[in-house]
Amino acid sequence: MRAVDIIAAKRDGKELSRGEMEFLISGYVSGAIPDYQISAWAMAVYFSGMSPAETAALTSVMLQSGQTIDLAGIAGPFVDKHSTGGVGDKTSLILAPLVSALGIRDPMMSGRALGHTGGTLDKLEAIPGFRTNLSTDEFRRIIETDGFAMTGQTKEVVPADRLLYALRDVTATVESIPLITASILSKKAAEGAEAFVFDVKYGSGAFMKEREKAELLARSLVDTGTAMGKKIIALLTAMDEPLGRMTGNFLEVEECLDCLEGVYKTDEGSADSSDLMEVTLELASRMVVLGGKAESTDEARALCETCLASGKPRGLFLRNVASQGGDPKKLLELRGKWRAPFRGEVRVPGGAAAYITRVDALKTGRAAVALGVGRSRTEDPVSPTAGVEFLHKRGAKVTPQDVIMRVYSATEKGLEEALALLGEAVDFGDAPPLKQNMVLKEISAAGAA
Amino acid sequence: MRAVDIIAAKRDGKELSRGEMEFLISGYVSGAIPDYQISAWAMAVYFSGMSPAETAALTSVMLQSGQTIDLAGIAGPFVDKHSTGGVGDKTSLILAPLVSALGIRDPMMSGRALGHTGGTLDKLEAIPGFRTNLSTDEFRRIIETDGFAMTGQTKEVVPADRLLYALRDVTATVESIPLITASILSKKAAEGAEAFVFDVKYGSGAFMKEREKAELLARSLVDTGTAMGKKIIALLTAMDEPLGRMTGNFLEVEECLDCLEGVYKTDEGSADSSDLMEVTLELASRMVVLGGKAESTDEARALCETCLASGKPRGLFLRNVASQGGDPKKLLELRGKWRAPFRGEVRVPGGAAAYITRVDALKTGRAAVALGVGRSRTEDPVSPTAGVEFLHKRGAKVTPQDVIMRVYSATEKGLEEALALLGEAVDFGDAPPLKQNMVLKEISAAGAA
Repeated sequence: MRAVDIIAAKRDGKELSRGEMEFLISGYVSGAIPDYQISAWAMAVYFSGMSPAETAALTSVMLQSGQTIDLAGIAGPFVDKHSTGGVGDKTSLILAPLVSALGIRDPMMSGRALGHTGGTLDKLEAIPGFRTNLSTDEFRRIIETDGFAMTGQTKEVVPADRLLYALRDVTATVESIPLITASILSKKAAEGAEAFVFDVKYGSGAFMKEREKAELLARSLVDTGTAMGKKIIALLTAMDEPLGRMTGNFLEVEECLDCLEGVYKTDEGSADSSDLMEVTLELASRMVVLGGKAESTDEARALCETCLASGKPRGLFLRNVASQGGDPKKLLELRGKWRAPFRGEVRVPGGAAAYITRVDALKTGRAAVALGVGRSRTEDPVSPTAGVEFLHKRGAKVTPQDVIMRVYSATEKGLEEALALLGEAVDFGDAPPLKQNMVLKEISAAGAA
Repeated sequence: MRAVDIIAAKRDGKELSRGEMEFLISGYVSGAIPDYQISAWAMAVYFSGMSPAETAALTSVMLQSGQTIDLAGIAGPFVDKHSTGGVGDKTSLILAPLVSALGIRDPMMSGRALGHTGGTLDKLEAIPGFRTNLSTDEFRRIIETDGFAMTGQTKEVVPADRLLYALRDVTATVESIPLITASILSKKAAEGAEAFVFDVKYGSGAFMKEREKAELLARSLVDTGTAMGKKIIALLTAMDEPLGRMTGNFLEVEECLDCLEGVYKTDEGSADSSDLMEVTLELASRMVVLGGKAESTDEARALCETCLASGKPRGLFLRNVASQGGDPKKLLELRGKWRAPFRGEVRVPGGAAAYITRVDALKTGRAAVALGVGRSRTEDPVSPTAGVEFLHKRGAKVTPQDVIMRVYSATEKGLEEALALLGEAVDFGDAPPLKQNMVLKEISAAGAA
């Protein structure tokens, strides 16, 4: 077997065998196959695509390049959620305790903020003391006691993906649906869960700007995961505006606490967390169905809403904070007060029309990076207390000088930069915009619902 | 400027600027840009293609990566020919002295045999003493005295092409028309000639198996060379059968001597050199037109035939042998006698139909590699005296036991292997096949003629 022949076969649109993929990927990880052959192959995949069976084989070969979490001995069902990333996307912190309260186990491995999108680990680490570098034993133990645990990936998990992603990043081969699929699925499969709900976001603040591409990715995740013997549902959800009313690490933890306490809806046109909770409850409902705790999504959604109102998920969340080394008491003390020192506001300019028609997610996300919430390079630190609080979003009726956002920055320079970006993020119009459906479509193995 | 953005632009079908190409190629040669980015870019070029202006910019950037031959002070016109390679293709050895005798200067840099195709340098080196490693000064001096010189490329000529070709070879990116064009044209332009005739071969023994692809390459060479300010004509010529009646290094030199002495046609259906001379005279005629020594191809062809009959090209050929360190006397002494030691024959099998319909060029070329004529790896040595002498080719009327080929091998094992391949190379039929046109089409800047 020669790498060049495998590259040529993919270039010519042929389907690669599992053996060929194993030869490439294990050779790459061991150093026997050089990166210049892998990058040429990745570009050939970009153009020629891959069948679901081929993508499944690649995923499983990548998965085998490292360690997987063994959940044997712990009672399931194990169901996890994965999001392709967005601005203000804090659903994980709410749905993990929620579905756990309903008897689902969620072994969640998450990532960090990069570029304009936020990262679950950075949010969790804003909680004083919270550790996201759990050992496998800690991870297992906490899943057993709390029903869920939230950790980062160790270097031993899918090293092939780490190597391949770094190479794709510098060779313009990131944007390949089958390669994205294999990257996401191999890391998720390493967690040991048997079922997954994928939140595939589309819109300005999403990885996939266009709905069509997001749908292709969702379909690929479902087909490939199904071919690997997993139960999969994907939801296409909107990411044109930041999700909820907070963007920032500690700020988003606060918003999650509010939601877990049932505070997420206002009637008076102020920004609230109803869009966030719509997405969260739709995702959680699918997890409950996949975990066998409800027959239908409607039944599951009703279960989720009742459960949330019971306060049990809030209790589980705080228990998990303690289990992972955080200080629940300190978290509650800091709530509403702990903010970065350089502060500003974005107001409705004079002469603006009466309605906010859009708060752009991408510009908001970029502003968040300037504030210190996110990072442009993986090695940059983040600020726990920087961020943006939205008082109004899409659809709000406003008058000049109304405060739209409160802005908190780790640095003075960041504040200036962010205020400029945020000023441009808001569009106004004479009429209220149409209400946006947060969940556009469900994609499952049986076909689109 | 970042390499990844340039790769992404090419991936998305955008036209790259000269500056972007310079950044990539000079960065690659200096080591600033790693090979894994260049291989991804090459695969993107494979799929997205390049415009003639873009290919011209790449060619000129590659050309600038090394030294070019300065022909200043020598009277022109300088015209060269390049062939994409075939089996039994020895046209260079005949047309260089022929066009020189008509006042054209041919600064010819050639390559070696690789795979099933022969190489001019290997043929010339079969002449005892002949040197193909001329210094630039020797190259210039011999062009001045003989009208032509034939040498190999030094490491200083287009190092970018050497690096890029080696990378393309192992990343399945050889078969890209614009990259092939830039590779060929940059090396040719380094010779310093102002006009080129390209012999683009198609058929089983050619680099391009399909006529359509060969035509695309011919068009690309003409358009790109024209965009670079060169005068270019390309001919599409057939390469389904080995050219002429000899395949082998010294054997082919002998056949060229015969042709230079006017012996290239038989009437009785035996194999002869008329296909070789048809291609040679058509190529030479275009060189004469491009060099301004004739108004039309017809006029040029008549000039070539008269010139050949005068014996002047034969004299120039032998003079050049001496100029390049070879021994013309010894060459003439060895003629007809110097053959590799292990010998065999291919005969018409019992029960075969009456006509040879085809002698396959690819199988013949592979047999030549087994005999020691060519090489599978660039570092392998070749045999001067191994080869195949064809007594009959396509169209010959034969009866069982007629000898079709005489075979000479450097090793016993090679002889066995070659005889098996050659036995399969010949097809028979009940009726004579249609006569094949050797030159299918002329492609020039003004359009196809």
